[in-house]
Amino acid sequence: MTTFISEAESAALVNDELALQAAREAFLAVTTGSTFPVVIGHSSLPHNRFTLKSGSAGDLAGVKIGSFWPGNTDLPRHSSTIVLLDPATGRLSAVVEAATANAYRTAAADALAVDTLARNDSRRLTVIGTGHQALHEVRAVSRVRSFERVLVVGRRADAALEFAAAVTAQTGLPAEPAEPQAGVEAADVLVTATTSREALFDAGWVAPGTHISAMGADGPGKQELPISLYGTASLFCDLPEQSRTIGEFQHAEGATPVALGAVLAGAAGRTSPDEITVFDSSGFALQDLTLAAALLRRHSSGASE
Amino acid sequence: MTTFISEAESAALVNDELALQAAREAFLAVTTGSTFPVVIGHSSLPHNRFTLKSGSAGDLAGVKIGSFWPGNTDLPRHSSTIVLLDPATGRLSAVVEAATANAYRTAAADALAVDTLARNDSRRLTVIGTGHQALHEVRAVSRVRSFERVLVVGRRADAALEFAAAVTAQTGLPAEPAEPQAGVEAADVLVTATTSREALFDAGWVAPGTHISAMGADGPGKQELPISLYGTASLFCDLPEQSRTIGEFQHAEGATPVALGAVLAGAAGRTSPDEITVFDSSGFALQDLTLAAALLRRHSSGASE
Repeated sequence: MTTFISEAESAALVNDELALQAAREAFLAVTTGSTFPVVIGHSSLPHNRFTLKSGSAGDLAGVKIGSFWPGNTDLPRHSSTIVLLDPATGRLSAVVEAATANAYRTAAADALAVDTLARNDSRRLTVIGTGHQALHEVRAVSRVRSFERVLVVGRRADAALEFAAAVTAQTGLPAEPAEPQAGVEAADVLVTATTSREALFDAGWVAPGTHISAMGADGPGKQELPISLYGTASLFCDLPEQSRTIGEFQHAEGATPVALGAVLAGAAGRTSPDEITVFDSSGFALQDLTLAAALLRRHSSGASE
Repeated sequence: MTTFISEAESAALVNDELALQAAREAFLAVTTGSTFPVVIGHSSLPHNRFTLKSGSAGDLAGVKIGSFWPGNTDLPRHSSTIVLLDPATGRLSAVVEAATANAYRTAAADALAVDTLARNDSRRLTVIGTGHQALHEVRAVSRVRSFERVLVVGRRADAALEFAAAVTAQTGLPAEPAEPQAGVEAADVLVTATTSREALFDAGWVAPGTHISAMGADGPGKQELPISLYGTASLFCDLPEQSRTIGEFQHAEGATPVALGAVLAGAAGRTSPDEITVFDSSGFALQDLTLAAALLRRHSSGASE
């Protein structure tokens, strides 16, 4: 029997806690599981793109079909469908539409990195980016440390102001717009969630002890961080090879980022309060498979928010 | 709205005519459409494999997830699920389970090649292979020419006898086992459907004017045809690059097979009654997408056999 979870159902089932647990499972599984080459395809209109990320670990095997239709106006431009195979037979086991859940999943990876790498006494969270995903990031990250204040860096003042209001509404934390330099200098934790193709700030603005989670770079040419930061910071990522190919570290000649899975396993991590830690996430299939499994468990238990 | 067609439903909807029309659409579309790199993945037990074949053409975009779980006993070892995206929005449009239909789809490609390349006066069909897929091939191929007789070449006499009886039951044609040399020498049309990793016959046995459809070679190391045949035969295939990589022509240094799509478009084909034509099929995503679309049309029209 195939289980089908629609977009409306998965959007009602997902929450930050479910996504964080699924992320933790995925990052632990990546050390023993497999991920296969990412396919970047398109429809007959080449600007409408889809990606296939597939993998397996434990009793999970399957693929996430992510799509990006930039011309969508009434619907979100991003969609996501996760297909799971039955590990015993190879037959179709479940189909989970997960566009909304995918935003939680991506934010959860960065929250997991903050939980694992940021100083426990982190109080000031700065976000660069005021888009839909950035709000998911702030909400997810705000759950893993006792932040007292959120600074919002955006290109447009009105967007930053509106975003700060949304942060307060969703997290209860005071939030306000900031200039890039002031925002970066003040940050204990800095989250970047943009579509940038160049560094968003100067490396010299980053205070000792800062943790940075960068989620924007997920393709050739994308970049959020200054290259000079690589020499002074400890570098972490989700999948080292992918991060050096399409992630932030494509710009760092010879960078050897450490997998967050190794940090979770206790083999690496922050070694001093003054260390600057950087986590780059480009996304991998096991995150999608564990997310789908978590949604299926919650679905079968009859729970939803 | 997502449409879901289960394995039982698609098995009831599919037939040779539907599959042949879908194959024709696919081979015509391949000249204007796109196919993306094939992913070969596996479950956490590496012998359980899955492949992702994706593509787009016209208003079709999507992926076929084929799985091969060799340890299946009660269920078929091959499964197939086709996922279509809505061309207007990128969202999930349909999920079609298609394990049975996939056997029709693969046979239809070879039947299309026979219809396009074999002599019109072909009367004797020989098949090498006595498996499940071979029977689909014979049934599909027998529809496109007025065959009078089928010869069956198998490694085991009892399997060949049983297969010949099944051919007669499904096609109404007289069928009998044959030794390899006699079977190949007698053939106007020769179909190979085995898992062989070496040539199944001598090139010298092939009579002038024979058409050969070879469907077995779909991975590194697989081979059904004698290499010396490449020098004397006209070579055709579904996707030239794929055929040279994982298909039959991986064994033919410098072979330049012609795409069957070019034949359908009138740009190439059989040029004399004495020509030996060879078609190698390794399978491509557009066949799966057009098959799924055909099943969806028949599903929505409420028809089934």
